[in-house]
Amino acid sequence: MNFELTKEQSMIQKLMREFSEEEVKPGADQRDQTGEFPHDIIRKMAKLSLMGLNFPESYGGGGADTISFAIAVEELSRVCASTGITYSAHISLGCAPIYLFGTEEQRKRYLIPLCTGDSLGAFGLTEPNAGSDAAGTQTTAVENEDNWSIQGSKCFITNASHAKFLSLTASTHSKTNNQRQITAFIVPTGIAGVSIQSNYNKLGLKSSNTTEIYLEQVKIPKDNVLGEIGNGFKQFLVTLDGGRIGIGAMAVGIAQGAYELALQYAKERVQFGKSISKLQVIQHKLADMAMEIELARTYVYKAAWLKDQDKKFTKEASICKLFASEVARRVCNQAIQIHGGWGYIHDYKVERYFRDAKLTEIGEGTSEIQRNIIAREIGC
Amino acid sequence: MNFELTKEQSMIQKLMREFSEEEVKPGADQRDQTGEFPHDIIRKMAKLSLMGLNFPESYGGGGADTISFAIAVEELSRVCASTGITYSAHISLGCAPIYLFGTEEQRKRYLIPLCTGDSLGAFGLTEPNAGSDAAGTQTTAVENEDNWSIQGSKCFITNASHAKFLSLTASTHSKTNNQRQITAFIVPTGIAGVSIQSNYNKLGLKSSNTTEIYLEQVKIPKDNVLGEIGNGFKQFLVTLDGGRIGIGAMAVGIAQGAYELALQYAKERVQFGKSISKLQVIQHKLADMAMEIELARTYVYKAAWLKDQDKKFTKEASICKLFASEVARRVCNQAIQIHGGWGYIHDYKVERYFRDAKLTEIGEGTSEIQRNIIAREIGC
Amino acid sequence: MNFELTKEQSMIQKLMREFSEEEVKPGADQRDQTGEFPHDIIRKMAKLSLMGLNFPESYGGGGADTISFAIAVEELSRVCASTGITYSAHISLGCAPIYLFGTEEQRKRYLIPLCTGDSLGAFGLTEPNAGSDAAGTQTTAVENEDNWSIQGSKCFITNASHAKFLSLTASTHSKTNNQRQITAFIVPTGIAGVSIQSNYNKLGLKSSNTTEIYLEQVKIPKDNVLGEIGNGFKQFLVTLDGGRIGIGAMAVGIAQGAYELALQYAKERVQFGKSISKLQVIQHKLADMAMEIELARTYVYKAAWLKDQDKKFTKEASICKLFASEVARRVCNQAIQIHGGWGYIHDYKVERYFRDAKLTEIGEGTSEIQRNIIAREIGC
Amino acid sequence: MNFELTKEQSMIQKLMREFSEEEVKPGADQRDQTGEFPHDIIRKMAKLSLMGLNFPESYGGGGADTISFAIAVEELSRVCASTGITYSAHISLGCAPIYLFGTEEQRKRYLIPLCTGDSLGAFGLTEPNAGSDAAGTQTTAVENEDNWSIQGSKCFITNASHAKFLSLTASTHSKTNNQRQITAFIVPTGIAGVSIQSNYNKLGLKSSNTTEIYLEQVKIPKDNVLGEIGNGFKQFLVTLDGGRIGIGAMAVGIAQGAYELALQYAKERVQFGKSISKLQVIQHKLADMAMEIELARTYVYKAAWLKDQDKKFTKEASICKLFASEVARRVCNQAIQIHGGWGYIHDYKVERYFRDAKLTEIGEGTSEIQRNIIAREIGC
Repeated sequence: MNFELTKEQSMIQKLMREFSEEEVKPGADQRDQTGEFPHDIIRKMAKLSLMGLNFPESYGGGGADTISFAIAVEELSRVCASTGITYSAHISLGCAPIYLFGTEEQRKRYLIPLCTGDSLGAFGLTEPNAGSDAAGTQTTAVENEDNWSIQGSKCFITNASHAKFLSLTASTHSKTNNQRQITAFIVPTGIAGVSIQSNYNKLGLKSSNTTEIYLEQVKIPKDNVLGEIGNGFKQFLVTLDGGRIGIGAMAVGIAQGAYELALQYAKERVQFGKSISKLQVIQHKLADMAMEIELARTYVYKAAWLKDQDKKFTKEASICKLFASEVARRVCNQAIQIHGGWGYIHDYKVERYFRDAKLTEIGEGTSEIQRNIIAREIGC
Repeated sequence: MNFELTKEQSMIQKLMREFSEEEVKPGADQRDQTGEFPHDIIRKMAKLSLMGLNFPESYGGGGADTISFAIAVEELSRVCASTGITYSAHISLGCAPIYLFGTEEQRKRYLIPLCTGDSLGAFGLTEPNAGSDAAGTQTTAVENEDNWSIQGSKCFITNASHAKFLSLTASTHSKTNNQRQITAFIVPTGIAGVSIQSNYNKLGLKSSNTTEIYLEQVKIPKDNVLGEIGNGFKQFLVTLDGGRIGIGAMAVGIAQGAYELALQYAKERVQFGKSISKLQVIQHKLADMAMEIELARTYVYKAAWLKDQDKKFTKEASICKLFASEVARRVCNQAIQIHGGWGYIHDYKVERYFRDAKLTEIGEGTSEIQRNIIAREIGC
Repeated sequence: MNFELTKEQSMIQKLMREFSEEEVKPGADQRDQTGEFPHDIIRKMAKLSLMGLNFPESYGGGGADTISFAIAVEELSRVCASTGITYSAHISLGCAPIYLFGTEEQRKRYLIPLCTGDSLGAFGLTEPNAGSDAAGTQTTAVENEDNWSIQGSKCFITNASHAKFLSLTASTHSKTNNQRQITAFIVPTGIAGVSIQSNYNKLGLKSSNTTEIYLEQVKIPKDNVLGEIGNGFKQFLVTLDGGRIGIGAMAVGIAQGAYELALQYAKERVQFGKSISKLQVIQHKLADMAMEIELARTYVYKAAWLKDQDKKFTKEASICKLFASEVARRVCNQAIQIHGGWGYIHDYKVERYFRDAKLTEIGEGTSEIQRNIIAREIGC
Repeated sequence: MNFELTKEQSMIQKLMREFSEEEVKPGADQRDQTGEFPHDIIRKMAKLSLMGLNFPESYGGGGADTISFAIAVEELSRVCASTGITYSAHISLGCAPIYLFGTEEQRKRYLIPLCTGDSLGAFGLTEPNAGSDAAGTQTTAVENEDNWSIQGSKCFITNASHAKFLSLTASTHSKTNNQRQITAFIVPTGIAGVSIQSNYNKLGLKSSNTTEIYLEQVKIPKDNVLGEIGNGFKQFLVTLDGGRIGIGAMAVGIAQGAYELALQYAKERVQFGKSISKLQVIQHKLADMAMEIELARTYVYKAAWLKDQDKKFTKEASICKLFASEVARRVCNQAIQIHGGWGYIHDYKVERYFRDAKLTEIGEGTSEIQRNIIAREIGC
């Protein structure tokens, strides 16, 4: 066993820490207020070859591993979770399915522009009436002689407004068994019939982009099928497994950021004649926060490591996401509490972390879904 | 024992429910987004003689009891916590100290316009460097021949922008023992030296008004001392005891509102082929929410009842505030969780409740301070 | 509303406090170690007319209300939960069904000896394969020409070894609709075919009696049917509603006892040069314990009051039982924690409370069942 | 990074699993009831060279690492926590201080018999009036011409009745600065003045040995000082850091054992017509249990790994002990809950786990002390 980062992982950690402090942190509060998308940051990350971090160099990627990806998401989210989720979704929902299930041709055509930052990656799975119940997909794709025609809508798509194309799932008709099945497609966003809605008014992650997409008789070429026909359900399960490591890392980063703000404030804030960091109750809160973050981070790395070893990591991905997201909520809540009244005021930043953290308990499967998955994996 | 509301209390409950549904609920979401103050609602409440609900009719009040006041705050907060806190602070921090400690002359001059709604009530206690540690007050009042001169600043004052005068505490010099003591004063907001700052950018309660106030050599007449000189610390402790019942009631109302939205949603939302209210895990969440709200409400009424009986209620007020506020946080958190992704979106309302609820764990003494108080009361 | 005990309730509280301190507390630790049943205490309680406390005087009862019953259970359990549950089960599971569903003849024959303490009361509902799922009852009763013949077994019966007769449920055959239904019977324990097993080796409540009973072709007269034939399921639901108030009261008493021990210890135990009750973390633990006990007690009384008013109290009984039992677990756990190493040692008593408390989360419906009930009552 | 056990560690895991299943599990329930010490098991472990597992072979040890030690404790505790703590204390409190601070002579004389199983190891630190506040040690050692004379008492000593000698701390007088300091000594238990008290009557761990020891003018040779004079406080801090990994591992083992029993029971128990492992609420409980155990185990290994790397691991040891012990409590509590009424009965085993688990939150520093330590380590 070895619980130390490799040299490469440490280097990426250092790079991401510096980049986040210098480029991401300064405008984070303002972006939260205006909802402005972090275009500049994404451009700079592309220049640093970060947009394809854990994909092969042959596709313009960085050749790093999943732990490095988790570290990158964590460091971004420590200062700006909106940037963190933008990046995490780009990699794990945008790039990954194309890398995992795409043909060589598709990888060249779609993965390379994602890795180089020419497009942001996005993934359409959820529908207004099919949230946790992804099998209930109502978007349909009908195979015509020389194309597929897609009809329906998807919601909660991160990055959709800034993606030149996205993967999405649709219900198709199996010729073999005459049943509905799910198939994935790559859909350019600029073509006729695709309409990207405006950004949701969300509780947090306000400078990230999350929208609905309507598809009205959208025609796409036959070779835009991603993976095998009828294999879409299985594919998105694999994709979400990976995505959960990203959300876990994001949650760790949010928690770490809020914890640091709270620790700093507790040391500086004087009440009853001494720093409140000397009050035992505040100390125990901070100790619990530090403990839980340590546990969550260690386990996110474990899940990422399993993925890198090509071992099964479904249960571990759910655990890391479930635990880290609940840690993020608890830590941010206590970070506000330690700030007292100032914790409720935007200028002290922790209220932003509190709002952002809540998404991690919902995105890529609610905590309830994670528990369903773990229960299944342990044989219930 | 008797756990039933009296006829009068039931009547007020019915009135407040209808008023809240018809007058307060419709604009609540929009006010949350714009930060617009609910002037109209306050005017209508004044017409209904609600602004002095639990003060004697001789001062323009409604002659009701504290339980009725709690019910009123609860019902308002069930649909709009910003209105709830505006009203609660007006009554318990604005009106109460003048009624409790004011001379007959002061009651006539200041309590009557508050009860009739000519002014909103406000109370300045907290300072940038004296939050939980109210004894550390740095605002000073110096007695001159024919006035007092006040210098300093106060923060987190609810309603300050809409108050014609407010009570505040200042450090004064005791001639008897040559020590600093705290004295309360009534300060008109329109006079020279008083400057009300702009509304904070808060996590929630966005259409309520909370500001700082700067006092630069503010001269007020000698008869604006509220209560006895040097008695200010004791007075504000009594005032906060009462205020905590208001925050407790507000927390119950917020929790109730979020719970109803979640229950409604759970019944309507179909996943995996049935209403999610049929999923055992969702059922148990809703059961816990219902249970905790029941417990909190019952206890808020108990604290209010003790106050009405002129019994000591310091511990009970802290308990009702502490428990109800933590219930509100938990319930609103689960209300989002039950809504899944939609819970994170403004249109589904629960995210507003989630943001508003957090204040109840902080205002009028953080949960940590409540635990300190309870510990002292039980003899630690 | 009125949150004060009546004079009669206060009198019973005072009586039970004194009785518990003088008669019950002294041998409690030893009975816990030996498993000896508190026969003497029961005899003394009978002399004080407590064994039929809340039943009419015409049946030898005390004519008191359910709140008084709850107070009695609470006070006993504060010093010895084994005595508490013995008494609670006697009243709410033993006496109540006979009073509620018995004929005048049955009340005279069976309720009077229970009220006078000639027999302890007991109730057989649960079976090895029908715990939460009481509808799955496998004990059968077959109607013969001049008797009923009962065959089967029951488990977890409190007081069975000390009961001259008990009520139990059995599956009977409906002539109307040709289906299985449940009917209650009064079964003398001394007749042929009834065999009471030995006391379970339990985690706690070691001086209470809980056993299984086997029924082998037990013949009972026709007039031993309790209530209407086929109405047994409904009857036991009503019985359990009442029983839950008893368990709630027991939980409050256990929590109160453990809390008092912890508070006392915290004041006396000196570490780091001062009483540990001066450590903020210990103070906050004690504050939370005091708060939760207050909330639980208030609500147990509310549920009891509703029962006394002949209002529906199913939901409230489940809430009071569910909350109070979880409070008891948390409080006893913290009571050990406050005692440090000594908390793990029998002589310091809190470990007994910790073991006894756990039953309250299980008996008369686990916490999971309570949440099912509450969910149903709120319309899930 | 690498989250996989080495071959050697896996081998020890396999060995310990088999040994535990075959040799430790069979009598565990009975030993719990009788309090019989597991002498036979210890003898068999000695034969397998396990009693000095992680000490150099030159002292009769097994040359394994701390992770292997943790695994051994975990596997024993999974079936019998009394055996687990006996072994853990032997290694980490008995052997470790002699190995870490002893002279070569002392190691030969004392460590070898411990490693070969000729004596069990024990450590006397806590005193009746010095629990968490170890600096308050009242046992004194006075240096005479040719010996030290020790006077005082120690409590909560694991294994004392079965140890031929033990280490203990005493207050000594510093000639340098004329102050009290703490020094460690090796004290044979068979010499004049040493009196080992009888086994405590504990909540759990009933077949482990925990006693007080009285020292009445005990004379020991000068070369029985362990480590440097005056260095005892520092030494025991280091010793406890290591010991906490043992308690953490023990907690993981207890939790794992209870979890397996609960999962097994849930699959077999049928209610409402299906296995209760199909009820969502039971599934989520089991998922949470599995999640928390996974997190705790991973982190115990991390703390052990840091120790093996000779890195600072004080904070990590406290975190692993604190988290794992709270997990053990929660898991065992839910294991009972899942068993329903049967969970309260000795035969179903989980009540033993529930009692045993509680010690892990107390021994080698309560959870409150762990939080104090973590707070200090993070710079509060």
